[in-house]
Amino acid sequence: MDNAGAVAETTRADLRSWVESANTEDTDFPIQNLPFGVFTNAQSNVPRVGVAIGDWIVDLAALESARLLVVPYTVVDDEGNPKSVFRQKRLNDFVELGKPVWRSVRSQLSALLSASNAILRDDRDMRERVLVRQSDADMLLPFEIPGYTDFYSSREHATNVGCMFRDPENALMPNWLEIPIGYNGRASSVVVSGTPVRRPNGQRKDPSSARPIYGPCRKLDIELETGFFVGVGSTLGSPIPAKNADDHLFGMVLLNDWSARDIQQWEYQPLGPFNSKGFATTISPWVVTMDALSPFRVEQPEQEPKPLEYLRGAANAGVNMNLEVQLKPESATQLTTIARTNFKHMYWSMAQQLAHHTSSGCNTRVGDLMGSGTISGPKSDSSDDNVGTFGSLLELTWNGKTPLKLGAGEERAFLEDGDELTLRGWCQGNGYRVGFGSCVGTILPAHDVAAENNG
Amino acid sequence: MDNAGAVAETTRADLRSWVESANTEDTDFPIQNLPFGVFTNAQSNVPRVGVAIGDWIVDLAALESARLLVVPYTVVDDEGNPKSVFRQKRLNDFVELGKPVWRSVRSQLSALLSASNAILRDDRDMRERVLVRQSDADMLLPFEIPGYTDFYSSREHATNVGCMFRDPENALMPNWLEIPIGYNGRASSVVVSGTPVRRPNGQRKDPSSARPIYGPCRKLDIELETGFFVGVGSTLGSPIPAKNADDHLFGMVLLNDWSARDIQQWEYQPLGPFNSKGFATTISPWVVTMDALSPFRVEQPEQEPKPLEYLRGAANAGVNMNLEVQLKPESATQLTTIARTNFKHMYWSMAQQLAHHTSSGCNTRVGDLMGSGTISGPKSDSSDDNVGTFGSLLELTWNGKTPLKLGAGEERAFLEDGDELTLRGWCQGNGYRVGFGSCVGTILPAHDVAAENNG
Repeated sequence: MDNAGAVAETTRADLRSWVESANTEDTDFPIQNLPFGVFTNAQSNVPRVGVAIGDWIVDLAALESARLLVVPYTVVDDEGNPKSVFRQKRLNDFVELGKPVWRSVRSQLSALLSASNAILRDDRDMRERVLVRQSDADMLLPFEIPGYTDFYSSREHATNVGCMFRDPENALMPNWLEIPIGYNGRASSVVVSGTPVRRPNGQRKDPSSARPIYGPCRKLDIELETGFFVGVGSTLGSPIPAKNADDHLFGMVLLNDWSARDIQQWEYQPLGPFNSKGFATTISPWVVTMDALSPFRVEQPEQEPKPLEYLRGAANAGVNMNLEVQLKPESATQLTTIARTNFKHMYWSMAQQLAHHTSSGCNTRVGDLMGSGTISGPKSDSSDDNVGTFGSLLELTWNGKTPLKLGAGEERAFLEDGDELTLRGWCQGNGYRVGFGSCVGTILPAHDVAAENNG
Repeated sequence: MDNAGAVAETTRADLRSWVESANTEDTDFPIQNLPFGVFTNAQSNVPRVGVAIGDWIVDLAALESARLLVVPYTVVDDEGNPKSVFRQKRLNDFVELGKPVWRSVRSQLSALLSASNAILRDDRDMRERVLVRQSDADMLLPFEIPGYTDFYSSREHATNVGCMFRDPENALMPNWLEIPIGYNGRASSVVVSGTPVRRPNGQRKDPSSARPIYGPCRKLDIELETGFFVGVGSTLGSPIPAKNADDHLFGMVLLNDWSARDIQQWEYQPLGPFNSKGFATTISPWVVTMDALSPFRVEQPEQEPKPLEYLRGAANAGVNMNLEVQLKPESATQLTTIARTNFKHMYWSMAQQLAHHTSSGCNTRVGDLMGSGTISGPKSDSSDDNVGTFGSLLELTWNGKTPLKLGAGEERAFLEDGDELTLRGWCQGNGYRVGFGSCVGTILPAHDVAAENNG
């Protein structure tokens, strides 16, 4: 089952499902997608693995119990007792089984859900046992994340930051065109879409003051990113060649790398961002598999100079994926789109990121999350003069100098308490789209540290 | 059981054990220590938790089976079945039970092992069931490490690095005296003492070359550090005040933060060290509890300027701990001591590190490992002109300019293949010492990437 033909069969543009809501042009979850997530609902607070289809979730644990889905392995717990990889609070156990199993499950689901297949379509009782409305479900963090790495791979983003904080004539650092620059992030604070994000307190320093103060961040920002999950790990001392890197990827999510710009500015030298990033990172709950994304792969941008040998060799390393950021102030009733761009602009590919990460011999594990870095596109990419193409407020407002105009007289230089941020992403097919759903976070006020606010 | 009196009882200087090897002045593991680790041996490859005593390990799983050790909780697995927290490959399940349980187990072991207690002392069969020779055991990584953070808290080290790579007049960055600077490290590559360390390949750039090359690191270094393990976690949005931080610490280990200086120099701006550190970090296998270290707590160095309020309040935040680095070239028969210093010199304390880490609202989890940063002491601290007081070759050889003389005509600017590095640490009591054993790693040659070595 581990072959391109089986994958192609599940991504055919003309596939239709008996789940009607999966056949609309604007659903993120047509039968071509079938992303994996973990959920609970009012009927059962036992977490289990599900797959999104239209407005519904297919409960894989229920489907397996009904013998309509078969995992071709017996999996046992530490005590040697059989266990279901679908009756779990994370995807790790399922994904550990390997790519032939992911593909087998995908193929079985594609067949069961296709319009021509009567097994579930014509069995109302069974449908009621295995289908859960997305609106009735709570989505959980999809993976236990043993390591979170964040890259910095958009040339436009790195150039914008370099212009603002260093020298516009030499905006890119000398290493930027040679290395997919990245840093280790904090895995403990990666949260699933919908989790409120509390404004962090931290040290910031006014250039005119002798000492910093500790208090609420005043330059709270988003970073529009995607992330990929490692599905096949690698051992210590065994680099992953760029040309094989795609074999290690399970799937992708949207990722909001919340950033406290004032804290970052004061803390980041010489060891990089720390408290300015570690307070929260939000990801979307549905992991869209690389198989589902395969029809949308494109060549990455031309690289000059040509990267060193160990970073070469991955074909179609990019993904043509539309991305959008929306902001809704607490008082507003409407979302305002503040940025539109496309993942295809990324200079360094996921394959190059993984090859570089492991080129030192560093090992990787199932569930490792790697963020793309802020995705900013060329200005010329915008079809709407009022919507920017940059993935952070830092760039959209040029460090607060040109605030965004929202509806109803609202302006934003950086985020205010109560603001709701939504990331969206989708790959456009012919008559359907393979989407990511949304990645949402709302800003809560900082904890009161007035009493501690002086040195 | 969670009281200072019970702890004081287990750390009394006059305690003696019926395990004779625990009563010598030079053992690291007297009855006052009782550090926790995880091991297997030839008799059983089932990992279990043990405590070191003299030359022996007490097998806590066997002791519990014999009803000589009681954990005052029933612990169940995911399926609801009872499980032993000592028949595990990591300490996490035991430590999750909380400080009253750690202290109960420590008190029970102290009593069982004390010279006056006949239960084990006079029961040869039982002793043979529960005691394992350290020389017959393989030690495992003690914790599953959900997050690894490395700090940079030695003023002497930061000053030395600043003098070498920046401006001797302004060696410390402006933020250094305000923030316990740290960065997220790579948890996946933390390995236990004895694991060979392969020289990493990576990008390095000669200033005279237009492009970097990818190949074996030429400036491979050690960093002498300690690390502490979080034993009581904290939730997202809930900072740990410095004055309460000690309540969250389980214990300490020695830590060698292997560093590829040439890779680091080229990659570290602007997001910090990444591949130069992520290929391996070695820790000692025995976790010495904060309770065992309590008699050796000292005030940390005077801090000027006085830190911001949220970093104040921890009393006796330092530890008087002797530290040593030894190097043995492959051809040598003897270890050469190349550095001696003391942990008491650290400017920023563990309590301040944890308070700062969580001051943004970042959460922590049981098993999180936090490294001190390279520990360098004042030059005046040396009692031997031939042995430096700095915790890295970078400093000891001033970036390779003044190589170290070893025995038999050997010199070292940086590490060579086959070099065996040993860290040692101990707190000196009156007639006994509470030690860490050793933290050892031997350098293997880099993988051959000659074919990939040109851009």
